[in-house]
Amino acid sequence: MTGVAVIGAAYTKFDEHWEKSLRDLSTEAGTKAIADAGIEGRDIKALFIGNMSAGKFIGQEHLAPLTAENAGLLPIPATRVEAACASGALAFLHAYLAIKSGMYDIVVAAGAEKMTDIKGNDAISTLMGAGDQEWESATGLTFTGLYALIARAHMHQFGTTREQLAMVSVNNHKNGALNPNAQFPMEITIEDVLKSPFIADPLTLLDCSPITDGAAAVVLASEKAARKSRNPIWVLGSAQASDTLALHSRNSLTEMLATKVAARKAYEYAGMGPDKIDIAEVHDCFSINEILAVEDLGFCEKGKGGRFVEDGNIARNGSKPINTAGGLKSIGHPVGATGIRQIVDIVKQLRGEYGPLQVKGASTGLALNVGGSGATAVVNIFGKEDRPRTF
Amino acid sequence: MTGVAVIGAAYTKFDEHWEKSLRDLSTEAGTKAIADAGIEGRDIKALFIGNMSAGKFIGQEHLAPLTAENAGLLPIPATRVEAACASGALAFLHAYLAIKSGMYDIVVAAGAEKMTDIKGNDAISTLMGAGDQEWESATGLTFTGLYALIARAHMHQFGTTREQLAMVSVNNHKNGALNPNAQFPMEITIEDVLKSPFIADPLTLLDCSPITDGAAAVVLASEKAARKSRNPIWVLGSAQASDTLALHSRNSLTEMLATKVAARKAYEYAGMGPDKIDIAEVHDCFSINEILAVEDLGFCEKGKGGRFVEDGNIARNGSKPINTAGGLKSIGHPVGATGIRQIVDIVKQLRGEYGPLQVKGASTGLALNVGGSGATAVVNIFGKEDRPRTF
Repeated sequence: MTGVAVIGAAYTKFDEHWEKSLRDLSTEAGTKAIADAGIEGRDIKALFIGNMSAGKFIGQEHLAPLTAENAGLLPIPATRVEAACASGALAFLHAYLAIKSGMYDIVVAAGAEKMTDIKGNDAISTLMGAGDQEWESATGLTFTGLYALIARAHMHQFGTTREQLAMVSVNNHKNGALNPNAQFPMEITIEDVLKSPFIADPLTLLDCSPITDGAAAVVLASEKAARKSRNPIWVLGSAQASDTLALHSRNSLTEMLATKVAARKAYEYAGMGPDKIDIAEVHDCFSINEILAVEDLGFCEKGKGGRFVEDGNIARNGSKPINTAGGLKSIGHPVGATGIRQIVDIVKQLRGEYGPLQVKGASTGLALNVGGSGATAVVNIFGKEDRPRTF
Repeated sequence: MTGVAVIGAAYTKFDEHWEKSLRDLSTEAGTKAIADAGIEGRDIKALFIGNMSAGKFIGQEHLAPLTAENAGLLPIPATRVEAACASGALAFLHAYLAIKSGMYDIVVAAGAEKMTDIKGNDAISTLMGAGDQEWESATGLTFTGLYALIARAHMHQFGTTREQLAMVSVNNHKNGALNPNAQFPMEITIEDVLKSPFIADPLTLLDCSPITDGAAAVVLASEKAARKSRNPIWVLGSAQASDTLALHSRNSLTEMLATKVAARKAYEYAGMGPDKIDIAEVHDCFSINEILAVEDLGFCEKGKGGRFVEDGNIARNGSKPINTAGGLKSIGHPVGATGIRQIVDIVKQLRGEYGPLQVKGASTGLALNVGGSGATAVVNIFGKEDRPRTF
């Protein structure tokens, strides 16, 4: 089977964009990614866009042809993929499969969300569309509430401390402070996190990723097309898995089965285990989720995630640098865009050209994008060098 | 490249299902399709679902893992695809590509929509999410309004008559009267159509497809897996294309560029032209759209669609039987489900086992699924026999 590489990657500033529409943001990210790839719009054979809820946020479904139109790419095939907060990475996965199928050689995978055009409470209830409407949303649960339940269970079962949760946010803000595209590029302290207002006990404001507008895009190319590129970053493995929407239907609150299954498959495709991953972008929508991620991805044993964070492993100079550009917490979380933004950050790190954000010597990277409270997980593994893969 | 076939196909009754939820309907369609394929749930490697707007209709995004959960298929990969009313066929296309990529051998492609849980006016405005929110929805346009503009332009430019439009609905209801799963299984006359209330001049109530609840599902299999099946129906060509969302941005109101581009590619992949297509399912969301479809698919010359209908070509015993099970008009139009429902009807006809609905001697069939006013078009071509294809 042919290899596939990312040859262009970019994202807009993540922010509250009062002066820009969703179409402005997607066009900006796409144009930058195409320019970064050193190709022309006419080289693009198809477009995929991850978006969670433009229908509710801005009254616009059918976003894919609109994006192709605004980018001047008509009449190419354009597909919207939705998997809540994992929409972006899932759009990437299907762009990857479309190239693997042989139908297209160069494809754009984008992600976008405009979340600030409605009132805050309406945004919260729109986001609950990612949970189980009949069993969770209808009871008044919010996503912070769901992750607070997970956090409490993890603290109870494994002795994870409140401070360890805070250290996740501290790490990610420390990285994000270097990122000019981050929504909240400032450093914070453990004390800041602990003293910020409770959203859902034990999670405080600074355990939670914000509501954000933004877009991100990457250009994928078949092996043949990628070989003409300046600096291709190869897709070594790409896999997704699913779990129940409702948290109460799962055997365990403290692991994400979808992450474990998707990771196992992605590692298998890539022919490597977690020990061979140099850097990772994981889905820190809430601080607890980064702790689950490092465990479920196999970076440490189940239950030891809090200790793994506390020991400094996730720092830029640690054994497994994570969210090196700021994560969802500091960069922001325009839900449909996040999965692609994570991939952009991995690609930029592996290219070795990420300026002040650069982590030294990274040659492999993994991105984990999670939908809802874990009903969808998508794992993509990348490498500076192409290598044999089983898929 | 490996061939792909449909080995199972089913849809629920299309209706106002007050007693069934979206998850009930999808599970019912999926279970029936899997049983029809003669396989077990554990054989299914991935699931795709087309859905336009469950976020607005029932407050539920993230529909794909929910569908996998309800069907007992966890933790398989589950992906929602959205392209307004073309969501179903686009989910099918990506299921097809996923098999072609070699990642999976057996995949379910489903489509579902529950439209009657909100008020009628809210359903109409939700459907306008398929149009251009900034340029069309905001002005108060409805989809009937958009298609009325198209109808007027076609009548003006080509002399298409009001009666010819009505004949589309008459034909489709005549077929639908034989279909136990149709929402409105009764015959109607030209006079009925002309005398029904105007929705948007020149379109009356009986030119318009209804608001409907329903789900449909097909099982796709790789060539190797399909060869074990009783009666595989082969995918000969599958293609999509895009156009502007806003009608006013197009060069012509009387042709759908996306349909023409998608059809050209699908014919090219299948190595056959429109003359080799025995039967077709086309997107008669409004009567005028079936006239555009027969022209843009190349069944007759541009501008001659009205005459083509009047001359009886689209009848069950005509030269090109169209919407032989009732079309969107008589079967109903649960928007995300329609594209899959069309494929189910083609598959059942090509198997030659469609009881009273059977059209004699059909060995090839085409399904055209259109999103919005034509910003997305998906064309799938099927055959009783596998044959060489260029993709």
